[in-house]
Amino acid sequence: MSWSKRIPTATPRMACFHKRSLNTVPSPVCVGYLRKSSTFARSPAIALTYSQYGPPEKVLNITKVPLPPLTRSTVHIRFVAAPINPADINQIQGTYPVKPQFKDGLGAVGGNEGLAEVIATGDDVTDLKVGDWVIPTASGFGTWRKHASCKPDELLKLNKHGVSPLIAATISVNPCTAYRMLRDFVSLKPGDVVVQNGGNSGVGQSVIQLAKAWNIKTVNVIRNRPNFDEIAENLQDIGADMVISEEDARKPEVAAKVKNLGPPPRLALNCVGGKSATNIARLLGHDGHLVTYGGMSKEPLILPTSLFIFKNLTSQGFWMTRWYETHSKAERATMLDELFQLAQAGKLREPWHDTTSLRDAPNIQETAIASIRKAMSGFSGGKQIFVMD
Amino acid sequence: MSWSKRIPTATPRMACFHKRSLNTVPSPVCVGYLRKSSTFARSPAIALTYSQYGPPEKVLNITKVPLPPLTRSTVHIRFVAAPINPADINQIQGTYPVKPQFKDGLGAVGGNEGLAEVIATGDDVTDLKVGDWVIPTASGFGTWRKHASCKPDELLKLNKHGVSPLIAATISVNPCTAYRMLRDFVSLKPGDVVVQNGGNSGVGQSVIQLAKAWNIKTVNVIRNRPNFDEIAENLQDIGADMVISEEDARKPEVAAKVKNLGPPPRLALNCVGGKSATNIARLLGHDGHLVTYGGMSKEPLILPTSLFIFKNLTSQGFWMTRWYETHSKAERATMLDELFQLAQAGKLREPWHDTTSLRDAPNIQETAIASIRKAMSGFSGGKQIFVMD
Repeated sequence: MSWSKRIPTATPRMACFHKRSLNTVPSPVCVGYLRKSSTFARSPAIALTYSQYGPPEKVLNITKVPLPPLTRSTVHIRFVAAPINPADINQIQGTYPVKPQFKDGLGAVGGNEGLAEVIATGDDVTDLKVGDWVIPTASGFGTWRKHASCKPDELLKLNKHGVSPLIAATISVNPCTAYRMLRDFVSLKPGDVVVQNGGNSGVGQSVIQLAKAWNIKTVNVIRNRPNFDEIAENLQDIGADMVISEEDARKPEVAAKVKNLGPPPRLALNCVGGKSATNIARLLGHDGHLVTYGGMSKEPLILPTSLFIFKNLTSQGFWMTRWYETHSKAERATMLDELFQLAQAGKLREPWHDTTSLRDAPNIQETAIASIRKAMSGFSGGKQIFVMD
Repeated sequence: MSWSKRIPTATPRMACFHKRSLNTVPSPVCVGYLRKSSTFARSPAIALTYSQYGPPEKVLNITKVPLPPLTRSTVHIRFVAAPINPADINQIQGTYPVKPQFKDGLGAVGGNEGLAEVIATGDDVTDLKVGDWVIPTASGFGTWRKHASCKPDELLKLNKHGVSPLIAATISVNPCTAYRMLRDFVSLKPGDVVVQNGGNSGVGQSVIQLAKAWNIKTVNVIRNRPNFDEIAENLQDIGADMVISEEDARKPEVAAKVKNLGPPPRLALNCVGGKSATNIARLLGHDGHLVTYGGMSKEPLILPTSLFIFKNLTSQGFWMTRWYETHSKAERATMLDELFQLAQAGKLREPWHDTTSLRDAPNIQETAIASIRKAMSGFSGGKQIFVMD
């Protein structure tokens, strides 16, 4: 029963990455984009950019971006892979609070998360060397591009030993969000139960795996769909204790099953909103925390007054960007170290995904837009990831 | 500009109480029910009781309740006044989590809050004496009655010096709720701004007065109504800095006025739910707390996802009953002392109200039911209070 067998909408390209994920170490067969190049002359410095807010398919363009010469205090990096997260799309649409800086003649580069490799360092740079794996420290860096020039303090160096590049490229948003939400709101003990909706989202998969690693049980609500059983089985394979549909989440007999799983749940994680948030809030016991990190339904949360007054519900939000802004680089490094250790131990895998090569082919723009469209259509097809091979 | 002049729906009986409230000390003209009687032979031990849940007008009856003989360890008390709070009605309807104990042939006595006077003490009782003012310590005591027998530890003694009996009778639910909500969720400094809906409710009036006493500004949202200006003026008289209608609360120019009042509000108090809760949540700045203590609209809270994620909103509940269950009698006494000092200083007055005498007249049941109906129709007519003169 292999991991790749479980992918609901597997494609040959996906199968390749999933097979690789089984041993977590990059396979030379698949990782052509990990060339240890110290120059970028061979591949033009292309980027997926936009100069105004709007629908991504209308405002995004593949652009050749001039890379400034290396100085004593800068580094040049080459991106390896960068996912398309919902926030990236909202940012292009202009609805995200983190606004990019539009530069004359270039605009802004899309994407906020991604793995890059250091390909050149200025003479005064001591803490990074060619070949290091790095991720941007701040939102708005622009990761949907092949190359970038920056100061070393804009980057966080990763300990890449034994970790798949796709985990590294997708670790700072989804697994870190899952990590913080499981750690920072309720003091969970082994055997405790956590409820979440969007259980098959990128964060959802991370929550399941981290909870499993920490001996915490998960109740995972997902939308009903034709291949519900298949998705449910996939989630159980990575550690889900219960997978239920939105409709079932409202049934008293399902609530009774949740009660039998362990102590009354005190943490519910919401990325959907609307009645789905109501459903998981109702599954909480006394003194529960409902933490919202997304709103895929585009509906507000609907929460009964009685839950707040008589069950002492607390409803809060979590935003990874704010956490990064309010915490030190050292705290971030500690979290990433722990997540990478779990990845090295095979307990945290990259999300179900589909990759798109940002190779400079004639149709590269259409290919990129197609990936973004897939990402916008919902998360059932897996995380869309650009690879810059 | 007297207090009584400001009462929107003043009746002669209300005017009497309001006039008295001006000097806060009980006036002998009005306080016939404060007889220092040490027996209750003159007035039968009647009570407003129910033996099953249902609409109050159908299940409540005036009953003669046998009072057990005084023992060495018990006291006899005579109720002075007891308000009709929304929770009392929900309890009779069967929708409140605190359930009364139905006793054979008697049922349960309605009401959870009220001021009583000690009229007899057992030989072993040392901490209470005849004439002391007391309030029940636990919900479910049953306060809509003339007399009761109980253990001293079921009562909290009040320092009655210079305090009106109507403040004492209505202090443990509404003013205490306001006190805790202003103290326990956000650390407020003088000049800070608090937003609330139901600003003319019992709790709302207490919030305005306590905030005024502590140099905190209040933005008070109330429903639009024909006598809006009159109510607004009344609320301003007791210290409200802004009074706005639900419709105005959504307008950008009103939000701008709130911004000009002081630092961005970090505390909003909600007793309405539905879109009203949305309105006051939107008036909060970053890191705001929305505290829900009632749901007069009977609609759930509707809260946009973006408030939680990008403005770090926290939505919580407050229930005075739980606070009492989880805090000591000493902590309660400290709070009451502080509130009574404010009352003695004329900074905390009894709520706008209408009193109904539970005198044993032929039509007493109809009279009591009429008061309960008024209380159920909304809070615009003021707090309904039974007096047992």
